[in-house]
Amino acid sequence: MWADQSEVIPEVVILRLPLYARTLAVLAYEGRELVSSQELGERLHVTPAQIRKDLSYFGRFGKQGRGYNVRRLLQELRQILGLDREWVMALIGVGRLGRAILGYSGFAPEGFRVSAAFDLDAGEVGKRIGPLVVQHVNELAEAVQRLGIRIGIVAVPASAAQRVVDILVNAGVRAILNYAPADLRVPSDVLVREIDPVTALQSLTYYLKLQPTEQLVPLQMLSAPGLFRTEP
Amino acid sequence: MWADQSEVIPEVVILRLPLYARTLAVLAYEGRELVSSQELGERLHVTPAQIRKDLSYFGRFGKQGRGYNVRRLLQELRQILGLDREWVMALIGVGRLGRAILGYSGFAPEGFRVSAAFDLDAGEVGKRIGPLVVQHVNELAEAVQRLGIRIGIVAVPASAAQRVVDILVNAGVRAILNYAPADLRVPSDVLVREIDPVTALQSLTYYLKLQPTEQLVPLQMLSAPGLFRTEP
Repeated sequence: MWADQSEVIPEVVILRLPLYARTLAVLAYEGRELVSSQELGERLHVTPAQIRKDLSYFGRFGKQGRGYNVRRLLQELRQILGLDREWVMALIGVGRLGRAILGYSGFAPEGFRVSAAFDLDAGEVGKRIGPLVVQHVNELAEAVQRLGIRIGIVAVPASAAQRVVDILVNAGVRAILNYAPADLRVPSDVLVREIDPVTALQSLTYYLKLQPTEQLVPLQMLSAPGLFRTEP
Repeated sequence: MWADQSEVIPEVVILRLPLYARTLAVLAYEGRELVSSQELGERLHVTPAQIRKDLSYFGRFGKQGRGYNVRRLLQELRQILGLDREWVMALIGVGRLGRAILGYSGFAPEGFRVSAAFDLDAGEVGKRIGPLVVQHVNELAEAVQRLGIRIGIVAVPASAAQRVVDILVNAGVRAILNYAPADLRVPSDVLVREIDPVTALQSLTYYLKLQPTEQLVPLQMLSAPGLFRTEP
């Protein structure tokens, strides 16, 4: 039943849930017990109707006229998103970017753990970075099985990204966080999320370019690109 | 006329243009002269009709049955996006993340230059990082005017992000690349793009969670979250 249900939930709804959860976590931290869809919408620049519709895919959470219980809704969302457990990740590419990712303190509190680091360059193999020893990418498939790696983080140059992704996919990894500015080819059952600051900047400049000589174009804030815009 | 036109172009179209440009740059590098909307669509996991519709907002680029001239379309897109010039950016926050951003080699080749670095902590002020000397954030407004800073990169902890964004906005900056996992409040004429790997991971896990016991849910690859999905 859940599998059937999941097929009809638009991916854009799933993409908004982590942002709802993040805002609820702030409210919980502030000691708030209840929140209305109105206030949640204002904080996230989305209509209350959108929030109610998104949540309705997963059941009934709020009481009419009373709002949502902050902690309960947060807990439900974390369960729906699979955030009530730890996820094991592998990093591929231990250059400057890869090392920054290994040093990033934001993963662990959210249950994401980088448990192995790999590189294509044999010269990097055996080096110690924090608690990890860099392995050659040839050892990846074995590590995926042994450590239960579910997510691969690609931090190699664009020219090597497809090769690394093929290795991850062949090893059974079905979720990839890609920092390389490259269009990756993956089977239809593999999910890719791109983290690319340059692409993000390149759509900002379109609007900046219009500003100096033209009237400022009013735009909604985008908490995440495209998620909170309604197509006309 | 352009200002009017820009108001009717959906933002999701603008968000796709950098991805078209990136793929065209790869094709140009491969020495390709022409490309069909069919092939461009296959590379980007989007329908040829979508590409033709997106480009039609900006004029006629392809010849019926002949495809697009790769270099010419790339050049046009770069001009539309404002990528045919240099953009001056300021970084705020010189911790581990900020230093990784300063060391990122992907900005300069695309015309994005970090020209100044700031921190809230007086203890960081005066330190040299590459060609830059860290300044106190109180000096930001003056630097924005003097250096022509148009984009602010926020790399401070979430708890300090709103304060930094307020300083940027008051200094006249209208485009923000936000690495802090925080929902920012900005005026309607300020654009924010978030770079947050944790939020990206938190929607992947929804699908991963369904995999071990349930049948694998087939999903399209997302080159950028939400951009290439059609709402049902």
